[in-house]
Amino acid sequence: MRTVEWDGDAVKMIDQRALPWELAFVRLETVEAVAESIRDMTVRGAPAIGAAAGFGMALAARQSAATTVEALIDELQSHAELLKSSRPTAVNLAWAVDKLMKIALSGEFKSADDMREVLLGAAQQIADDDVAVNSRMGSNGAALVRDGATILHHCNTGALATVDYGTALGVIRAAFERGKRIHVLLDETRPRLQGSRLSAWELEQLGISYDIIPDTAAGYYMGKGEVDIILVGADRIAANGDFANKIGTYQLAILAKEHRIPFYTVAPTSTIDLSLSSGAEIPIEERNPDEVTTPYGNRIVPETFRARNPAFDVTPQRYLTGIVTENGIARPPYSRSLARAVAGERLGGGE
Amino acid sequence: MRTVEWDGDAVKMIDQRALPWELAFVRLETVEAVAESIRDMTVRGAPAIGAAAGFGMALAARQSAATTVEALIDELQSHAELLKSSRPTAVNLAWAVDKLMKIALSGEFKSADDMREVLLGAAQQIADDDVAVNSRMGSNGAALVRDGATILHHCNTGALATVDYGTALGVIRAAFERGKRIHVLLDETRPRLQGSRLSAWELEQLGISYDIIPDTAAGYYMGKGEVDIILVGADRIAANGDFANKIGTYQLAILAKEHRIPFYTVAPTSTIDLSLSSGAEIPIEERNPDEVTTPYGNRIVPETFRARNPAFDVTPQRYLTGIVTENGIARPPYSRSLARAVAGERLGGGE
Repeated sequence: MRTVEWDGDAVKMIDQRALPWELAFVRLETVEAVAESIRDMTVRGAPAIGAAAGFGMALAARQSAATTVEALIDELQSHAELLKSSRPTAVNLAWAVDKLMKIALSGEFKSADDMREVLLGAAQQIADDDVAVNSRMGSNGAALVRDGATILHHCNTGALATVDYGTALGVIRAAFERGKRIHVLLDETRPRLQGSRLSAWELEQLGISYDIIPDTAAGYYMGKGEVDIILVGADRIAANGDFANKIGTYQLAILAKEHRIPFYTVAPTSTIDLSLSSGAEIPIEERNPDEVTTPYGNRIVPETFRARNPAFDVTPQRYLTGIVTENGIARPPYSRSLARAVAGERLGGGE
Repeated sequence: MRTVEWDGDAVKMIDQRALPWELAFVRLETVEAVAESIRDMTVRGAPAIGAAAGFGMALAARQSAATTVEALIDELQSHAELLKSSRPTAVNLAWAVDKLMKIALSGEFKSADDMREVLLGAAQQIADDDVAVNSRMGSNGAALVRDGATILHHCNTGALATVDYGTALGVIRAAFERGKRIHVLLDETRPRLQGSRLSAWELEQLGISYDIIPDTAAGYYMGKGEVDIILVGADRIAANGDFANKIGTYQLAILAKEHRIPFYTVAPTSTIDLSLSSGAEIPIEERNPDEVTTPYGNRIVPETFRARNPAFDVTPQRYLTGIVTENGIARPPYSRSLARAVAGERLGGGE
């Protein structure tokens, strides 16, 4: 079972808004529907929306009535913009769309149908690669988790946030699969509760010991000496190592520093955006305040009450112990190690 | 309108669980009902539960069929234990109960009825004093808030957390009443959402500008330079200045230090417990995990999912800029300034 996959002539994905109550799937037959599924968080998690966007491009090509390569490229260009504008922060989205657009523009196609086939193959490759890459990140990161460790985790970074297996939660899973006795404290991650709804659901399936905690209790458990390591995901990593991730990550990083707890982000190299010199350039999405005041349709305060809802924050690289990628663990100076990881060089630090 | 008051032959209080939807009152005619109202958080906030416990003792005396002073004292002693065990962390509860018990044991009564009358008067005095004390804390603290300031606030510390006016929210109110243009960022304060449900409701009534933010966003706004000062309440302050307060306070204090933002707790001297040398001795209540997984009856994850729910944390005094009391602002070394404040000496720092 994959979070996102190609299904004959459509994109099939888990409807993450229905969890943990129901494992429901949606089947999307247009690129517009794929863009909407990203916007409304039917699918979420940087690698998962990257894969969804790749399939969205393949779907756009399939949908099109264009009979020439040139006409198809024209249509794809507007659909690429549509997909890229569906959410601004995670770079995997633009990375996947640009990858397919570059193939479309390669000038190597005899016919529109030829291009359609190659684009679908490339989208499929992005999804398959994601699974392989997550498995390698798991191996690389598992060595950081000692037997008996309690791991603090934020948001959801598991199979649901990727095509399969997971990033930070993938490292946790890899440590567990290697026989390490671990316990996970799951930040519930308001406002959308990805920790309690999605990560807890995944750990239930895997049989990994956990407790959901309110986001307000993270510092409390660190202060009690109960947290050995903190693992989070990333939505975009700048060339200097600053990274955007789910709102609340920045404050966890500061708490980690104060308590001298190792703090790692786990992300594939597709999350690294070398075009940005620092995190200050990463766009931060502000979502509808209703997500705060009316979580999942349960209105907790009157409609007139005002709220803010920034969806991400940026953590400066100085708070990071390291960045776990599929090519090994990047360490400071990140400007060097991240460039090497993106170039496919093998960094140290794995198993 | 007071949060807690004597009403003929019963204790009348706002049912804080019904807010922000309804301003409902309950009328409690037995000390057992008062103890339960504290336990189930019909009434909450350290000063408010102190006042409720004082009235609970007066009610216990009234309820009793005892005809001699000695018999009445015997009954009061067991009711005192009942009230004190209803919640462990806030010291105002024990402070009020002990204050009335000391009067009962003073040996100055001719009859049981005489004692009943004096105890009711003393309970009334605790409630009246609380309003006066809050007003003085407001004056003392308002000078800390500059015109144009954005204040970050946690939990609820307003009129609802006291008999009237408030502690930290009382300082905010006092600054507003003095014409300062202020904006308040209200941590929603999971799991019980006192920030979004109670503090936002109070600021709506007062016409003070605010935004509710998820607890995960507090660090984000500090990092953006949008927070000028942080004001919180306290449930118990040890002799060295360490203090217990609503879960999440400790991590705010660390974030304040990292961002060099002034961080104050605002509390009456009845919250200071000189019998404890440090915060390590303060008992921390762990409440039912259902408050995390099923807030206000809305189940957000299946029953089988596990959660933890520590209700308070302890902030070491080294993170504090100062402690605003009705007798002025205590500054380090707190072992000296708090002892002076409790003794009724006037500290500096107010208007």
